[in-house]
Amino acid sequence: MDINFVDYLDIIGTIVFAMSGALAALNNKFDYFGALVIAFVTATGGGTLRDLFLGASPVFWIHSTEYFLYIFIGYLAATVFQSTVLRFRKTMFLFDTIGISVFTIIGLEKTLGLGFTPFIALNMGVMSAVFGGVLRDVLSNVPPLIFRDEIYAIPCYIGGIVYLILRSTGSPEEVNQLITIFLIILIRIIAIKRHWTVSPHVDRT
Amino acid sequence: MDINFVDYLDIIGTIVFAMSGALAALNNKFDYFGALVIAFVTATGGGTLRDLFLGASPVFWIHSTEYFLYIFIGYLAATVFQSTVLRFRKTMFLFDTIGISVFTIIGLEKTLGLGFTPFIALNMGVMSAVFGGVLRDVLSNVPPLIFRDEIYAIPCYIGGIVYLILRSTGSPEEVNQLITIFLIILIRIIAIKRHWTVSPHVDRT
Amino acid sequence: MDINFVDYLDIIGTIVFAMSGALAALNNKFDYFGALVIAFVTATGGGTLRDLFLGASPVFWIHSTEYFLYIFIGYLAATVFQSTVLRFRKTMFLFDTIGISVFTIIGLEKTLGLGFTPFIALNMGVMSAVFGGVLRDVLSNVPPLIFRDEIYAIPCYIGGIVYLILRSTGSPEEVNQLITIFLIILIRIIAIKRHWTVSPHVDRT
Repeated sequence: MDINFVDYLDIIGTIVFAMSGALAALNNKFDYFGALVIAFVTATGGGTLRDLFLGASPVFWIHSTEYFLYIFIGYLAATVFQSTVLRFRKTMFLFDTIGISVFTIIGLEKTLGLGFTPFIALNMGVMSAVFGGVLRDVLSNVPPLIFRDEIYAIPCYIGGIVYLILRSTGSPEEVNQLITIFLIILIRIIAIKRHWTVSPHVDRT
Repeated sequence: MDINFVDYLDIIGTIVFAMSGALAALNNKFDYFGALVIAFVTATGGGTLRDLFLGASPVFWIHSTEYFLYIFIGYLAATVFQSTVLRFRKTMFLFDTIGISVFTIIGLEKTLGLGFTPFIALNMGVMSAVFGGVLRDVLSNVPPLIFRDEIYAIPCYIGGIVYLILRSTGSPEEVNQLITIFLIILIRIIAIKRHWTVSPHVDRT
Repeated sequence: MDINFVDYLDIIGTIVFAMSGALAALNNKFDYFGALVIAFVTATGGGTLRDLFLGASPVFWIHSTEYFLYIFIGYLAATVFQSTVLRFRKTMFLFDTIGISVFTIIGLEKTLGLGFTPFIALNMGVMSAVFGGVLRDVLSNVPPLIFRDEIYAIPCYIGGIVYLILRSTGSPEEVNQLITIFLIILIRIIAIKRHWTVSPHVDRT
């Protein structure tokens, strides 16, 4: 099996999502077992829903059991080096953004590969990127963060549309992927810096 | 494809469910993107679970992408005309009740059409009608309304049983559908007016 | 169809899980209908997720409708004899532990029978045992109990590993099942008595 750079980014994204899940769980007074479950759900939840909705069964991590390993690494890193990890918030934010951009592309490609339309592929790509975090919040009994005051899914949608356009031009796959990932990271960083929001509830004075 | 009046009512039900989801989300301080997701989950959640449990994959809205359009219309109506919509609470209630009655019939017919028993069809019909609202509440981090103090699923069960009986008599499909829808609306309105409840916690003095 | 003793224990586990779901729901001010839904979700939720993830569709209770009956019995027992049931907490605890041990074995065997690896079977076995309780808590809008301060899944993991080892020795199925069930019950009782925990948040002074 060829391993290209998207596979490496997928591994990084999975580890970082697992870390974010474990940290949220420990912060929420869950025990170490609960933190491991939340880490797993955060890292795999979006792709699991994608596979279920598309009828691509069994879901991806049943056969690709290496995801269990990546998640366990992220979980260990988060629980053992908890205070250290929390100091690298900017690095974590960057890795998390790499994660959602890579997951968007992987979800999109998987859906197209199964023969579905670009419209469905775009939605499944973004869903596989962001719904792990939604499930993490639901299991932690807090209102999903991404529905409240963060630009999170919209950069994925924009990146996904650009990726679909690039893809249709016949431009090389890796170039399209790189452009899309940089674009999503760029939009998200600008959105955070400029306090962009799609919330009607935020005081902007 | 023939479009009969149940298809029209399905569209109305979908739009109204999307409106109710969007309104609940905005009321819950979610942003515009979160409101769109909640609108989608409210309108499609019950039927999605039905399809997953029955193994009817991919789920219905993957191929019937017109649902994305209906949901977007409901979402737009709710967010743009928010205050106006809230003034038409009785109309919304009526449309919502039409929605659950139509979704019950559609879920029931789909399950029977896949070769399952009337007992499973009845349960899948009611579930596809009411679980969108349950998922809306779970994602909004509130205890599901329909489990607390409203007669919501029981009219669907009664309507579903009557529909199954009518169906077995060979009476024309549209007549059966009309009778069932009117019956469900009637029971629900009477239940609300008379404060019927199946809750042990309500003070009835 | 041969009915062996694991089938009997499966019935007991299903009834007890339904009781625990109904009691939690009533305690949470849900109405009688809500309590029935929560009873169903608690008793079937873990196995339903297992079947969905493995692509074993339709999910088990669509064809094995006798589960509806067992759940209804547990639901009735819990709602009618609510105060009596609450006095038998130790008996309920024992039955609940029998439930999770039997569900672990059944989930494990079903997964192996579908041709998946022992590693996946172990995880699916434990998940089918404990995720009904997780979904009960999510629908009840409380943080899942098993993620907080109870040794619940770990005895299932240990029992599952021992069961896989016993199974590979060619020892008779019923002996393996009995040993596993007794082991899980034993570990859980000792864990409770000695206040074992995997939580970093518990004051152990």
